[in-house]
This record gives sequence, C-alpha cells and structure tokens, in this order.
Amino acid sequence: MGGDHAPEMVIEAVDMAYRRFPEARYVLFGDEARLRPLLERWKPAKSVSSVRHTDEVVTAEAKPSAALRTGRQSSMRLAIEAVKDGEADGVVSAGNTGALMAIAKYVLKTLPGIDRPAISSFFPTLRGETVMLDLGANIDCDANNLVQFAAMGDVFARTVLGIPRPTIGLLNVGSEDFKGNDAVKDAAQILRQEGLPTSFHGFVEGDDIAAGTVDVVVTDGFTGNIALKSSEGTARLCGQFLMQAFKNSLLARLGYVFAKPSLDKLRKRVDPRRYNGAMFLGLNGIVVKSHGGCDALGFANAIGVAVDMAVNGFNDRIKEEIEELSGERHAFPQAAAQ
Amino acid sequence: MGGDHAPEMVIEAVDMAYRRFPEARYVLFGDEARLRPLLERWKPAKSVSSVRHTDEVVTAEAKPSAALRTGRQSSMRLAIEAVKDGEADGVVSAGNTGALMAIAKYVLKTLPGIDRPAISSFFPTLRGETVMLDLGANIDCDANNLVQFAAMGDVFARTVLGIPRPTIGLLNVGSEDFKGNDAVKDAAQILRQEGLPTSFHGFVEGDDIAAGTVDVVVTDGFTGNIALKSSEGTARLCGQFLMQAFKNSLLARLGYVFAKPSLDKLRKRVDPRRYNGAMFLGLNGIVVKSHGGCDALGFANAIGVAVDMAVNGFNDRIKEEIEELSGERHAFPQAAAQ
Repeated sequence: MGGDHAPEMVIEAVDMAYRRFPEARYVLFGDEARLRPLLERWKPAKSVSSVRHTDEVVTAEAKPSAALRTGRQSSMRLAIEAVKDGEADGVVSAGNTGALMAIAKYVLKTLPGIDRPAISSFFPTLRGETVMLDLGANIDCDANNLVQFAAMGDVFARTVLGIPRPTIGLLNVGSEDFKGNDAVKDAAQILRQEGLPTSFHGFVEGDDIAAGTVDVVVTDGFTGNIALKSSEGTARLCGQFLMQAFKNSLLARLGYVFAKPSLDKLRKRVDPRRYNGAMFLGLNGIVVKSHGGCDALGFANAIGVAVDMAVNGFNDRIKEEIEELSGERHAFPQAAAQ
Repeated sequence: MGGDHAPEMVIEAVDMAYRRFPEARYVLFGDEARLRPLLERWKPAKSVSSVRHTDEVVTAEAKPSAALRTGRQSSMRLAIEAVKDGEADGVVSAGNTGALMAIAKYVLKTLPGIDRPAISSFFPTLRGETVMLDLGANIDCDANNLVQFAAMGDVFARTVLGIPRPTIGLLNVGSEDFKGNDAVKDAAQILRQEGLPTSFHGFVEGDDIAAGTVDVVVTDGFTGNIALKSSEGTARLCGQFLMQAFKNSLLARLGYVFAKPSLDKLRKRVDPRRYNGAMFLGLNGIVVKSHGGCDALGFANAIGVAVDMAVNGFNDRIKEEIEELSGERHAFPQAAAQ
C-alpha cells in the first residue's frame, strides 16, 4: 500500500516480475477490496499471489517512532512480520523509508555483530556498477559502523554481483591519511590491517563514485544520502541541458532525430528505474525499499533485487563474514592508540 | 608557482584577465628567472605586472601544518602577506589548498564574528547559478559555524551575484524538521528566528543543488566537498556516456555532426573552467583558490572572481552583516533549549 501509485503499480510489477522469476510467490498485504479487482486484471500476478487483508497503512508523513508505536496491523508491519515468521523470504515496500527501517530493525533485529543496518544501492559507473552504503539510515556513524558497512558491502558485491574480490573504498575529502574526520580515519586504520577478508583500496573521493574506482563505496548515512541525491540532481540537469541544446537550432533538432535511437538506448541504460531497490543490509531478513514515486517497472526491479538476495543466500554469507571480521577486530584498540 | 602548469599558465591568464579588467594590476611571486622570459612573451601581462622574486615554493604534497611552520619565504606565504600589508587587494593561487587556507587563516585572521573561514564556489543550475559553502575547509562544523556560513553566503550572493534577497538552504537528508544531525537541526532553529537579515528557505536535499532551489546552499566541509565532487563525477560520466552513444551507429555519428554547434555551446556553458575560482570567505582579505589542474582560461576566471569581490567591497559588507547577526544571536541558547 506504500508509494505514490500503490496498489495498482505493485500488482502490475508482480505481473512483470512473474515473467522474470516464474518460481517466486507473493503475499500481498493491504486492502483486499482494492487488491482483488486488480488481481482479476493481472491474471499471471493472481496465479502467484495470496492476499492478507488489513485496513491500516503507514502514511508517507508518519514519523518512524510513531509508525513503530502505533499501526501494529499496518500492511508494512504485517509484511515485515511475515519475514520474521519465515512465511516470506523478503519484503519489498515503496512506503515510508524511515518507518520501514525502524519497524524492520525492531521486528527482525540486526545480524549478530552488526550494530546498525545500512541502506545500500547500485550506481551506474563508466566501468559497470558500484555499490554504495549507507545511503541514509545512520546519520552519525563511528569507525566500527563504517567497518561493518564495509564487510556487508563486500559480501554483497561477492554474492549478488559475483565479483570474486571486491575492492572497498572509504568516502573522504582526499586520499591522504591525514584527511577526513575521526570516524573515517579510524575505520581506515582497522580496514588496513593484514589478513582481513576484505580488499581495502583506501580513501576515495566523490568523483570516484561515478568513475567506478572501487566496487563498494562506504560512507555514513548523512554523506551517502547527499552524495546520492547530488548525483541524481546533476544527472537530471545534464539531461535537461542536453534537451535544451537539441532544441537550440533546426540543425540540432535534425541531429537529435538521427541520434535518437542511440540516445534512447542510453536513456534506458541510465534509467533510474533500473537502479530502483535499495537494500537494507544487516538485518535478520531481506528488506528492499523501492522509490516511493516509482512505476511498475521500477518496483519490478526492486522485487528482482530481493529475489537475487534470497536466491544467493546473502544473509547467511554476511553472518560468516562478520564473524571472521570480529575475530580480527581485537587488534583495533591497540592500533588506534598508536 | 602553484598548480600543474605554473608559472606559464599564470602569466597567460594575467594576459587574458588584462583584456577583461584593464585597470587591475598584478604582483607575481615566484622564480624571477622563469617569470621574466614569460612576461617578455606576454607583453600586455608585463605592462600590468611586477615580479617579487623568491626561490621557495609550497609543494602540492606538503601538509598544511608543515607549510605553515616552514617556508616563510614561499611564494604562497609572501603573496598572502602582500594582502595583509595592503599591497594587494586579494590573492589568487592554484597551489596546495590546505596550505593556502592554513597560511591565509594564520596571516590574515578571520573577520570579527567568524570562527572559521569557508570555501565557497558556484554551481551551474537549471535556473542560473547557486553558491555553495563550505566545500572542504571545515571537516566538523557546529550549528554556529553553519549559521556564519549562511550569513557569508547571503552577503556573497547579494554583493557579487547581485541578488537582492537571496534564499538560503541548509543541506540535509530530508526537508522535515526532525531529519538530520544536531548541527543542521540547531542551525535551522537559529536561522528560522524572526528578524534575521537572511531569508532562510529551510532544509534542502542533494538534488536541490542542481535544481537551483535556493541561491545559497550551506553545509559542512566534509559533506560539501563530497557533494561537489560527486556532482563533478556524475557530470563527467554523463558526458562520457553521451559520447559513447554518439559513436554507437553511423546514424548517431551523423546526428552528432548536425548537433555539434549546439553541443559545443552547451559544453562551453558547463565548462568547469567557467566555474573555476573557489573563494575563501570569512578572512580579513580576499583569497581565491584556482583548481590545480586548470589552464590559463580557468585561472583567468579565478582572477575575475577576486576582482569581483574586491570591486564589490565584499569583506566590508560581510563585516556589517555578521555584526547584525551577532546582535540577533542572543536568542539562540534559549531557542535551542526549548
């Protein structure tokens, strides 16, 4: 029931996802009176879905703490509880991000060794795709949080992206050791230790995200959210400037007509819907957040992200990695005191 | 002597700047043996320049603290001292950013009421230009630092950009009051008070920078640096994706030929050299930092920024504004305690 175009776009997305993952099954939480007629329209979606009725919803404006206290029968809460109860392998929602994180953290709890979950997503780069985390779940982060994010990002890149030894970069204002705040400096010191299972590249700067310098970019939620949205805004501006340029003269308009098939391909490649589906990493269960304003194609991609994580046993792998890392971490206090 | 292409590009830039600002005069600090022959090549530059010889330079790798302790005879140090002594109205350098800030702060001191200077620059937006600060001088900022940045940005937009009542936005991860870290929440509370000379829009998000939602975007130096570089990286990626698309097919290549004059105009409009020249605001003197890798055109723009600031009496105006703001600020501790 979350997002600007629910529940219609959710049902249509299930229909799309059915074609990509015919084995997946769906439990839809929400207003049965609205869901049933939609399922009649999208028969393939109906064939793989069951409906769990509830009247309550978490609104987009709800404060996370309020959504957590009240609304025990909300569609969001019940969907997350289905993951906890083992009825579902993951939950996908286009609803209120803060509420989804707060409820997921409360109901599912974090994985052993993880203090705080992180929001993670893909970025298109010149070399392919980069994973970045945290994108907004944790406003203030200490060095240990960042190290845990690095471990989670590493496992994610290996299990879901299939990169054998992903490189990890810590987002900073410069590449030199003395640059940055205490959290990034201490985190770098931990990650530089020998024998860690992750491959630490060192500090990276803002322009390294789009350059694809590393496979995983680690940062706190405040910086990550602003880097993500600054990049989105710049990409939109580039597109708008470009369309203005094509309208500048008759010759430019003609050029656009010739180049259009190629430009359409590019548009498809950088379509934000292709990158829809932010993963909440570090929870005892798979939680994927779709953009609230997305359409069915975007939501179907978010479903795809959840399916990928479930099929690749992401959460089991992350548990193993964190245990390994925790074993190594004893060296930290000494190293930091040097 | 700073930057990748000094001193050649500096002399060439003075030559370019001479055509835009025939009244401006230049004192060039550096190796006379290298500067003299260049001035012979660029006669107009020679006609408005004098040379102050020194052998010492601050290297790009120098730590700011080391550059401050040693190198009292460096070209950077002597140029900043010329501003302090009233011999020059401002200094422009393409050298080591951290060293330039450290020496400028030590030699020139901050303006009364300003605890810390900030680095500021322009961003192209759909609606024109936005000023953003801090872009990297202050890694950790408290609410008062951010409020001072807002006041400085406000004066800058009024005096240099000529906007009668600029709107100020605080960069955050959401627009709601409860979002963000303590520094931005407290700063917003101060800026929301009645009667302040600035026009506070509220929180803005990363994508508001390129959208041009406000005239001045205020943030701490860590976030600002990463937002700036993330945007630069994304713009570069957009350009590279676009050129790939134009090479995709014969038709697309043909389209490029037709659209080229229009695209060249766009390229010129978003040319990073046009936005070269970051201002160190809040110092008793005008200091402009050019990108280290820039060419003469970029450095000439940085000179232009310094000339604009000097001609518009930026530093006098900022002093008045800060005094007004300090008068109002008595209400702060009460407001924060509510």
